[in-house]
Amino acid sequence: MKILDGKKISNDIKDEIAAEVAQMKERGEKVPHLAAVLVGNDGASLTYVGSKVRSCKKIGFESTLIQLPEETTEETLLQKVQELNANPEIDGYIVQLPLPKHIDEQKVLMAVDPDKDVDGFHPVNFGKMALDMESFISATPFGIMELLKRYDVDTEGKNVVVIGRSHIVGRPISILMSQKGKAANSTVTLTHSRTKNIQELTQQADIIVSALGVPEFLKAEMVKEGAVIIDVGITRVADDSREKGYYITGDVDFDNVSKKASFITPVPGGVGPMTIAMLLKNTLLARERHRANKES
Amino acid sequence: MKILDGKKISNDIKDEIAAEVAQMKERGEKVPHLAAVLVGNDGASLTYVGSKVRSCKKIGFESTLIQLPEETTEETLLQKVQELNANPEIDGYIVQLPLPKHIDEQKVLMAVDPDKDVDGFHPVNFGKMALDMESFISATPFGIMELLKRYDVDTEGKNVVVIGRSHIVGRPISILMSQKGKAANSTVTLTHSRTKNIQELTQQADIIVSALGVPEFLKAEMVKEGAVIIDVGITRVADDSREKGYYITGDVDFDNVSKKASFITPVPGGVGPMTIAMLLKNTLLARERHRANKES
Repeated sequence: MKILDGKKISNDIKDEIAAEVAQMKERGEKVPHLAAVLVGNDGASLTYVGSKVRSCKKIGFESTLIQLPEETTEETLLQKVQELNANPEIDGYIVQLPLPKHIDEQKVLMAVDPDKDVDGFHPVNFGKMALDMESFISATPFGIMELLKRYDVDTEGKNVVVIGRSHIVGRPISILMSQKGKAANSTVTLTHSRTKNIQELTQQADIIVSALGVPEFLKAEMVKEGAVIIDVGITRVADDSREKGYYITGDVDFDNVSKKASFITPVPGGVGPMTIAMLLKNTLLARERHRANKES
Repeated sequence: MKILDGKKISNDIKDEIAAEVAQMKERGEKVPHLAAVLVGNDGASLTYVGSKVRSCKKIGFESTLIQLPEETTEETLLQKVQELNANPEIDGYIVQLPLPKHIDEQKVLMAVDPDKDVDGFHPVNFGKMALDMESFISATPFGIMELLKRYDVDTEGKNVVVIGRSHIVGRPISILMSQKGKAANSTVTLTHSRTKNIQELTQQADIIVSALGVPEFLKAEMVKEGAVIIDVGITRVADDSREKGYYITGDVDFDNVSKKASFITPVPGGVGPMTIAMLLKNTLLARERHRANKES
């Protein structure tokens, strides 16, 4: 059994990006600039955005945090989005979700310039991804693909079972892994709440990607010997015996499933840390594409 | 065994659209207007486009056929596309593929206004489809969904095997059938050239959608008793004994597979006739959305 160490790989990626940024600076080029828009005071969102901004600083990116009050109107937010679209200093930006209930999230995401949409949430980026065109792939599926590539996991012709059909994980990873190319060319089955024979399917799977959000859903008896296990679930489970009052767990019964798996991602330290690294990677790509477009 | 009669259903749909158009006329409203751009003199393309234009006439749509010479430059074609985008008389239009080799097809399809893209080939429409937003779904997968709906085929929780990962059939139908909703909620496996155990998979499938283009690929022994068979393959097979010198066949060994199937589409007369009907349906939807946008 080998751990797919997302923490290590994400640090490798950040180091690679930092080296590229250092070279950009040496050449006197503009460095990538990521902006993040945060509306309201949601604690978890503040933590996420703060961590993204800190990561930018660490690797040499410019970053801008735009904090707007909870009562910001949709109109004001859309105006801010237009400003960011028009600002040539900004290479990419994210609008941290969830937005307050009085704002139409879809409307806001649709207003983001697809060329600055480093979250990959705009339908045109999703469509390009699905049609195998150059795009921004959203961080979680992009991170899973990168993990598989870096560990040289053999995916070609393998039977992959994806659990969960969410727009941000299950759907895109099911598309990416069934396309041509590296870490892909798999035969993918996408399962969800209406799937009747989930255990039968997982037992036959060479690779399982679980993005369900149900703690320890995937048990050892559901997995075949030698399977590759990608755990995208992250759930807080209340536990008074811990200092924080909870612990973090994934969709996989790690202790037992890891005994049968050939590769497995831990939670935490697997897919999670990859997401920030891939957001930074997308911002670097955005910078490079903007430069290329200007030159051409 | 029941035939999924695409010829009959497509005629039903055309009749329904014609009735709506008649009502539009009575109310003094503008009727849907479809334009088709044809570059060059490819015989098959001429036939397809001609048939689309004739269908428009029959159901009361306005239609415009724009024929451009083979040597049309990409620039001229893109200019024509911009004219069609800007023309408020045109509700939807198609650029007939394939285009001559000196023209970048992707560039042209990207230039089509997504709100007039009744072929559903623009990435933003593909992305919206995949994200379950309002969009134009391309005619073939849209036609398959409509056939399944009209025959009340039970798809919920069923195991669907899609053969072929093309951008215009395999990929979109695999997405649509695994979404929530009618004729959907299936557990879909997308198979392709790198799939190793295709027969094992088809034998377990409740529903098979074959979009491979290999005549009579799907044999009776690959299919379980009671399966639903959707044949999207259309291949001309040379045959001197026929007047035309060829016959049309699908991916399915119809004579033998039909004995085991609960529902099956014939070729010709199955999925094929549905495509023009769904193009007309998309044009009607385009008209309705344009009117709604103006009123809002």
